[in-house]
Amino acid sequence: MNKITILIHCHDQPNIIASVTNFIVKNNGNIVYIDQYVDREQNIFFMRLESEFVSDNFNTNNFKTDFKTSLADKFTMKWRIYSSEAKPKMALFVSKYDHCLYDLLARYNSGELNLEIPFIISNHNDLKHIADNFKIPFYHIPVTKETKTNAEEKQLELLKSHNIDFIVLARYMQIVSNKLIDVYKNKIINIHHSFLPAFVGAKPYHSAYKRGVKIIGATSHYVTEELDAGPIIEQDVTRVTHAHAIQDLIAKGRDLEKIVLANAVKLHANRKVMVFNNKTIIFT
Amino acid sequence: MNKITILIHCHDQPNIIASVTNFIVKNNGNIVYIDQYVDREQNIFFMRLESEFVSDNFNTNNFKTDFKTSLADKFTMKWRIYSSEAKPKMALFVSKYDHCLYDLLARYNSGELNLEIPFIISNHNDLKHIADNFKIPFYHIPVTKETKTNAEEKQLELLKSHNIDFIVLARYMQIVSNKLIDVYKNKIINIHHSFLPAFVGAKPYHSAYKRGVKIIGATSHYVTEELDAGPIIEQDVTRVTHAHAIQDLIAKGRDLEKIVLANAVKLHANRKVMVFNNKTIIFT
Amino acid sequence: MNKITILIHCHDQPNIIASVTNFIVKNNGNIVYIDQYVDREQNIFFMRLESEFVSDNFNTNNFKTDFKTSLADKFTMKWRIYSSEAKPKMALFVSKYDHCLYDLLARYNSGELNLEIPFIISNHNDLKHIADNFKIPFYHIPVTKETKTNAEEKQLELLKSHNIDFIVLARYMQIVSNKLIDVYKNKIINIHHSFLPAFVGAKPYHSAYKRGVKIIGATSHYVTEELDAGPIIEQDVTRVTHAHAIQDLIAKGRDLEKIVLANAVKLHANRKVMVFNNKTIIFT
Amino acid sequence: MNKITILIHCHDQPNIIASVTNFIVKNNGNIVYIDQYVDREQNIFFMRLESEFVSDNFNTNNFKTDFKTSLADKFTMKWRIYSSEAKPKMALFVSKYDHCLYDLLARYNSGELNLEIPFIISNHNDLKHIADNFKIPFYHIPVTKETKTNAEEKQLELLKSHNIDFIVLARYMQIVSNKLIDVYKNKIINIHHSFLPAFVGAKPYHSAYKRGVKIIGATSHYVTEELDAGPIIEQDVTRVTHAHAIQDLIAKGRDLEKIVLANAVKLHANRKVMVFNNKTIIFT
Repeated sequence: MNKITILIHCHDQPNIIASVTNFIVKNNGNIVYIDQYVDREQNIFFMRLESEFVSDNFNTNNFKTDFKTSLADKFTMKWRIYSSEAKPKMALFVSKYDHCLYDLLARYNSGELNLEIPFIISNHNDLKHIADNFKIPFYHIPVTKETKTNAEEKQLELLKSHNIDFIVLARYMQIVSNKLIDVYKNKIINIHHSFLPAFVGAKPYHSAYKRGVKIIGATSHYVTEELDAGPIIEQDVTRVTHAHAIQDLIAKGRDLEKIVLANAVKLHANRKVMVFNNKTIIFT
Repeated sequence: MNKITILIHCHDQPNIIASVTNFIVKNNGNIVYIDQYVDREQNIFFMRLESEFVSDNFNTNNFKTDFKTSLADKFTMKWRIYSSEAKPKMALFVSKYDHCLYDLLARYNSGELNLEIPFIISNHNDLKHIADNFKIPFYHIPVTKETKTNAEEKQLELLKSHNIDFIVLARYMQIVSNKLIDVYKNKIINIHHSFLPAFVGAKPYHSAYKRGVKIIGATSHYVTEELDAGPIIEQDVTRVTHAHAIQDLIAKGRDLEKIVLANAVKLHANRKVMVFNNKTIIFT
Repeated sequence: MNKITILIHCHDQPNIIASVTNFIVKNNGNIVYIDQYVDREQNIFFMRLESEFVSDNFNTNNFKTDFKTSLADKFTMKWRIYSSEAKPKMALFVSKYDHCLYDLLARYNSGELNLEIPFIISNHNDLKHIADNFKIPFYHIPVTKETKTNAEEKQLELLKSHNIDFIVLARYMQIVSNKLIDVYKNKIINIHHSFLPAFVGAKPYHSAYKRGVKIIGATSHYVTEELDAGPIIEQDVTRVTHAHAIQDLIAKGRDLEKIVLANAVKLHANRKVMVFNNKTIIFT
Repeated sequence: MNKITILIHCHDQPNIIASVTNFIVKNNGNIVYIDQYVDREQNIFFMRLESEFVSDNFNTNNFKTDFKTSLADKFTMKWRIYSSEAKPKMALFVSKYDHCLYDLLARYNSGELNLEIPFIISNHNDLKHIADNFKIPFYHIPVTKETKTNAEEKQLELLKSHNIDFIVLARYMQIVSNKLIDVYKNKIINIHHSFLPAFVGAKPYHSAYKRGVKIIGATSHYVTEELDAGPIIEQDVTRVTHAHAIQDLIAKGRDLEKIVLANAVKLHANRKVMVFNNKTIIFT
């Protein structure tokens, strides 16, 4: 049996839902999940649909061609169609902090993540032993002012040669270049250690301490050219008091960071995220 | 323009979604919201759909008849169709506590609630002044062991004569009889002052204090014959510490109770709740 | 029996705690609550202490004098001593939104708030009927560009003539002048409808919607000259999704605003808040 | 410099605080933290105090003797005094689930936990590779009906020979015998995968699914003879919907379990927990 996930957006107009559901039926598919959302301000229609096709004759490429000509072109849709067999390939970028790395790899190991991790890239060697423990190839690509361009070339080469679908910056601590962002638009997931848009930039726990907030947070978002301003995928928060020193905020924040990042990775890998107008639509 | 909300459930089977969406199109309607859920354990399909009909010829009763014969009978559906023009009528039952009453009436007054409150019933006169302030008829129906049956007759009479759609027990403090429950099946909303199923029954804050929990909660649920065991609509919780006395739990709990109850009332009044197998499906 | 609450801060130095506890014992008091905090960055010691004095001879003024000469001067303390008999007097400033007003007055009515509300001031007449219902004097003081100075004079006159201890801006919607802020330093409590420091200024729900955050919040803080930048007393948050329109954020936010403001008012009225370096220390 | 943590409880009576603080001063100590709580129902006083002693002559044993004779005996105190130099020794019991194990060991590795882990015990060999990765001795002690007594002897032997201070059951999946509970009273920390007291016993996620709760939780508590009824140390919760299958609850629950257990371990290891009347007092 083939299982297909379809993501669509287009200008809102009558009969989109009926047309799509009819198209599935015409192709002998059964809809097992449908959800839609209309941005009334921008007048944009969004849909996520999962469908099963039992026929042996079903061919994903033919289906895509047919979908384009008989449906997508008519409604001027932007669309993506995924086969559930193809697990997305994720590259992990890390630096020196290990909590998000441990957390993601432990989930990966236990089968919780519907994805593949072909390799880990780091600008430092500190976490190589963890990659080794989990038997995942680890590439040490140092980044200095002088070597930055060269390092990016190496990164891109690795990403391309492994057909990487998306990148996760698990506290990578380096600003990613526009070149990489262009290639992986809305496909680079970062974890920022504050409740964005509060405390953009470096040292957000220090800023939170200074401002005396009673709640701290973490935010996972797609990386865009503007720092910490990309579409937000997931956020979470926890209470703090005046008695928490900066070190306490950092420790409490680690727990937020790993959970928020893992949730964002799962949403992305399960094709539940659409991006429009620098905001995400998250399907359930 | 007519706006219709449809709630459906039936055994899961192929082509339900396409058949329903086609039916809407055939009737010149435009689907503005669709959400579905399949209970895979019980193999039951649930759907909520909102549709707009611009034609002046549209007739809700004809639509219902047509829906039944050409769709619902075929799939053996249980279904309800609501016109958005008809606001549900809600009866408020209160006793001596005023926090939920104030909260609901303040929301009602500000236009936040999509419903009508024809009257308030209470077994005590203590809160009459609040009903008076908000200019809502208040019926004092005392309940004692001896008068209980008689009191219920009076309640039912009032409920029927005002075509009440659903009842909200805003800390009513009396156990409602099976007779009333039968007439208003899954239409009596209670607020229980604990995180059910912990601390069923009377004095839950005392039990929570004794057990030394670090989190307390409130639960809004439909009333069934078994006490505090009906389908849960909404729950919320808040942190407490050893330093909170029972009185503190009660005070903190009041804030939970009023928010949780108000949310449950809004979900019900907006026809976003379905009940199956003593559980709720809550559409967004 | 006399019950006294003492709030102290001074540079951290040895033997403060023992000296203070000895002083209480020497005065035949029994300490029923003690909590302390040291800001290690600034090296400042903070303490809150509650003590009971059973002797009929106990005199609060003598106690204060004695405290100053034999203790406070020695450690160069900033200190405040409150008798539990004297309930603080709170002035309510409102405008057109009623949710915080209803919430605070319902709590006040039920005895939940340890304070007195001598009057309500508003720049509009819209909420007068609520003040009337709760039988609290209501002063309509319109504010326009031309009358602003004059209006403030009237406000200050009322505040002084009623010996008001602190002011609560329950969605007052007007910027308070520095003159009022100077007189009531760290004694004017505002509720801001965002998770500060995100979305400072006007229309924070619109900004939150535009940024696509997954969590919205409310913040209660003391008013300082810089807008929305004063010491934070209390914050809370709630989850939202892409499907929430601005109106939904506003409605959900109202529930946050009233709970957060009420908690801040209770903390202040119970003398559990100290301010230092634009941050609050909140005792339990 | 010596740093000492003192935990006290006794019947509430006048002058305890002043007497303790005086005793510290007399011994040339400086109090850096003091917190107290009075259970007004039971009339019991609890205190936690941290104090620094700079003198080279300070001797912890002498201090304890002196504390007992001149203070504890007088007030009939139960007391414990810890030197901050002595890190508590924790034994980890695991079975087949790895999420709590990975989480605790990653924290341990990064220096977040103020304790030592001399060894891990498991009734299965499945997680040995993780213990090996983290270079912690792993003892495989199978438990069957027949070998249960024998297995416990081996466990106790290991615990004694390593001077283990407390035990953490990181999803150990076996019921611990009363013999072990007696030796480690209020020193065996369990993580239960529900919001206790809801869903006591086996398969709580299945029960939560069946009941249709909108919030699930996890609870860390000390093990007592009655199953899942010991003093609660820490709890946390997360929202779920009707659309979450049991497997989803289990996956979401894992995140709760590891955070809640880690927090409980930190509170215990930092001597911030006291137990009285089957409830915990948790100092900040």
